[in-house]
Amino acid sequence: MDFQTQAVAARGAAVELATLTRAAKDTALHAMADALAASEGRLLQANAADVEAARAAGTPESIVDRLALTPARIDGMVQGLRDLAALPDPVGDVVRGWKLPNGVSVRQVRVPFGVVGIIYEARPNVTADAAGICLKSGNAALLRGSSSALNSNRVTVEALRAGLEAAGVTPDAVHLVEGGRDVTAELMRARGLVDVLIPRGGAGLIQAVVDGSTVPVIETGTGNCHVYVDADADVDQAITILLNAKTQRPSVCNAAETLLVHRDIADTFLPRALQALHGAGVTVHGDPATVAYSEAVVPAGPDEYDAEYLTLDLAAKVVDSLDEALDHIRAHTTGHSETIVTRSRRAADRFVAEVDAAAVLVNASSRFVDGGEFGFGAEIGISTQKLHARGPMGLPEMTSSKYVIEGDGQVRA
Amino acid sequence: MDFQTQAVAARGAAVELATLTRAAKDTALHAMADALAASEGRLLQANAADVEAARAAGTPESIVDRLALTPARIDGMVQGLRDLAALPDPVGDVVRGWKLPNGVSVRQVRVPFGVVGIIYEARPNVTADAAGICLKSGNAALLRGSSSALNSNRVTVEALRAGLEAAGVTPDAVHLVEGGRDVTAELMRARGLVDVLIPRGGAGLIQAVVDGSTVPVIETGTGNCHVYVDADADVDQAITILLNAKTQRPSVCNAAETLLVHRDIADTFLPRALQALHGAGVTVHGDPATVAYSEAVVPAGPDEYDAEYLTLDLAAKVVDSLDEALDHIRAHTTGHSETIVTRSRRAADRFVAEVDAAAVLVNASSRFVDGGEFGFGAEIGISTQKLHARGPMGLPEMTSSKYVIEGDGQVRA
Repeated sequence: MDFQTQAVAARGAAVELATLTRAAKDTALHAMADALAASEGRLLQANAADVEAARAAGTPESIVDRLALTPARIDGMVQGLRDLAALPDPVGDVVRGWKLPNGVSVRQVRVPFGVVGIIYEARPNVTADAAGICLKSGNAALLRGSSSALNSNRVTVEALRAGLEAAGVTPDAVHLVEGGRDVTAELMRARGLVDVLIPRGGAGLIQAVVDGSTVPVIETGTGNCHVYVDADADVDQAITILLNAKTQRPSVCNAAETLLVHRDIADTFLPRALQALHGAGVTVHGDPATVAYSEAVVPAGPDEYDAEYLTLDLAAKVVDSLDEALDHIRAHTTGHSETIVTRSRRAADRFVAEVDAAAVLVNASSRFVDGGEFGFGAEIGISTQKLHARGPMGLPEMTSSKYVIEGDGQVRA
Repeated sequence: MDFQTQAVAARGAAVELATLTRAAKDTALHAMADALAASEGRLLQANAADVEAARAAGTPESIVDRLALTPARIDGMVQGLRDLAALPDPVGDVVRGWKLPNGVSVRQVRVPFGVVGIIYEARPNVTADAAGICLKSGNAALLRGSSSALNSNRVTVEALRAGLEAAGVTPDAVHLVEGGRDVTAELMRARGLVDVLIPRGGAGLIQAVVDGSTVPVIETGTGNCHVYVDADADVDQAITILLNAKTQRPSVCNAAETLLVHRDIADTFLPRALQALHGAGVTVHGDPATVAYSEAVVPAGPDEYDAEYLTLDLAAKVVDSLDEALDHIRAHTTGHSETIVTRSRRAADRFVAEVDAAAVLVNASSRFVDGGEFGFGAEIGISTQKLHARGPMGLPEMTSSKYVIEGDGQVRA
């Protein structure tokens, strides 16, 4: 099927999906899980071909690792679909409702978007994950995966569609969009057929989608997340939070990338913090004031305060005041998750009020900014834009709403 | 000031606006109202120049009427600002909140977008209205009005800025963006400086903004609104609703533009309905089945089922079934407001479930789909898109949200 045919088929499927009961969708999710589990052998084989081609093309091992599937990873994909079946269905939820003075009833009700396009990179597990989240939220999915995962994605989508069919749901709810860059461009400009685009991947991918799309886009996050250690911080707490935010999983968007330290606490905090970071294998890239505290600190280049390392590296800077910290964050934030460590209520209140980000944390690790940690059960990504959804996006964020207005003949005077 | 300078100043103002109390904003709104009232003479003079230039350029009288200000219209602008002061402030509202198992508290709180760009056509009253709504919701406003209203807009914005200053709020909260098309293009691509763009005007303007913007856009509505009279409709009710939806104010987006009639009720309904429409001065453009009922019905051209007349014209068609009505609406809807008149619960339920629009009405006039009628107090427009806000947009729809996460040292395991 070419893209246009797929998009039209998805639009048709969306009409059916919008009125499916939760029970029907959950049955379909389990059938998709069953079909995916049954195709494990073929999927591993297809994935081995993708991995071999990637290695032959000189792809870095870190990317090959994201691409590679194992029986355990496939189990994770299968279990992910079953977990979605256990979650509440957002569709049909009444957001709010009231009566007009003349007795007309107004209800704002959650409805699916319709057709959702997902543009993503090498991880083939996203294919099952995104298809499942779209199905549970009543949306048809156009999955535009990476060409490097094409064989894996084909087997996965084939299994998912077979599962849908076995459950009596139209397989046109899920499509793998194949082809060159021109097809991505078609997807990005398919207004009227595609309701929302969600890019999942690096900053370059997201920028390209934002620039090229006329379909509305929900950006998911790049995170240059700051930890600001205030003059009034509890030093032990600050070290614990910093270490967790930086090292618990450095490759993700809610990991810390920049440390700001108030000058008044630097003498107490920095020697211990730098030692702990060094012990955890973190390379600190510091301003001259930070460098002065340890030989292990390397001087920070001018662009490092804008870096999203995603590695065991951390930019660091000593600031003269809360105001300087706020200014620094304002200049360098990607609007993801920003943290203050302080015992001062006034400092915490100002930080919370003035920092413009999806999440602002006081005395807690930014690693909590996550759909799973929030208890959402599923997460399509973390939005760093301000429209529609900001922060972790669960199933309700995958819906729009509709006003249902019921009367018995009322008209406007 | 050139656009870049204005946008940077607005971004700076947004930092201040985000933390203003409701009392401070309400004081500013009254000061803006006072200043606007005090400048009535100068505004009428400036507007007379705009009107004269428009007439000299051969502008149609209907557009000149939109452009023209009168003391009564200026009173309306002034009162609009005072009315905003009486409305609740959405900023700071806690949308939801909960505790994580480890005691960390999570709250989702409403915050302003930051900087909002409004691109609009000839009505100079939008200038005060949009500036007021932005201020009340804590947003800085970049107002891109029509060049035909430039003199009126200049005097208005000067007064609004003077009011802000008198109230001790930065005047950089409101800017009039002047210049040619290249400046509009700059505004549409000012990512990082402008958070949201809201076009208000005809379909052409909205399409141009959607196509040209990299800043996220909230589309406001074009409405090809259908009234479907079901086989089980109460005929009197159907006629009353149809007449109200078509004629109460034909020039607005929630007015009816297309009538669909079930064949089984056509003999009873159409002769009376067509007579009533004719009596109200409505020209009906019908399919052959409708034409057969009255000599006053003119044959509908092939594109008329997609027309947003905004005049006393109505397209009409007889359909064989609810399914045909749903298919017709699916093919021609602009996603604004769609109405069914029926006593059948089953037909109403299917219509509500299957029609994909911002508002779906059962036995009520689509003229109720309006921020004022909904009790919102203020309305920036009616969104016909699915992202962020759908339907009438009040003050809460002019906000984003932020997660505030507070702990006492918790980290992720």
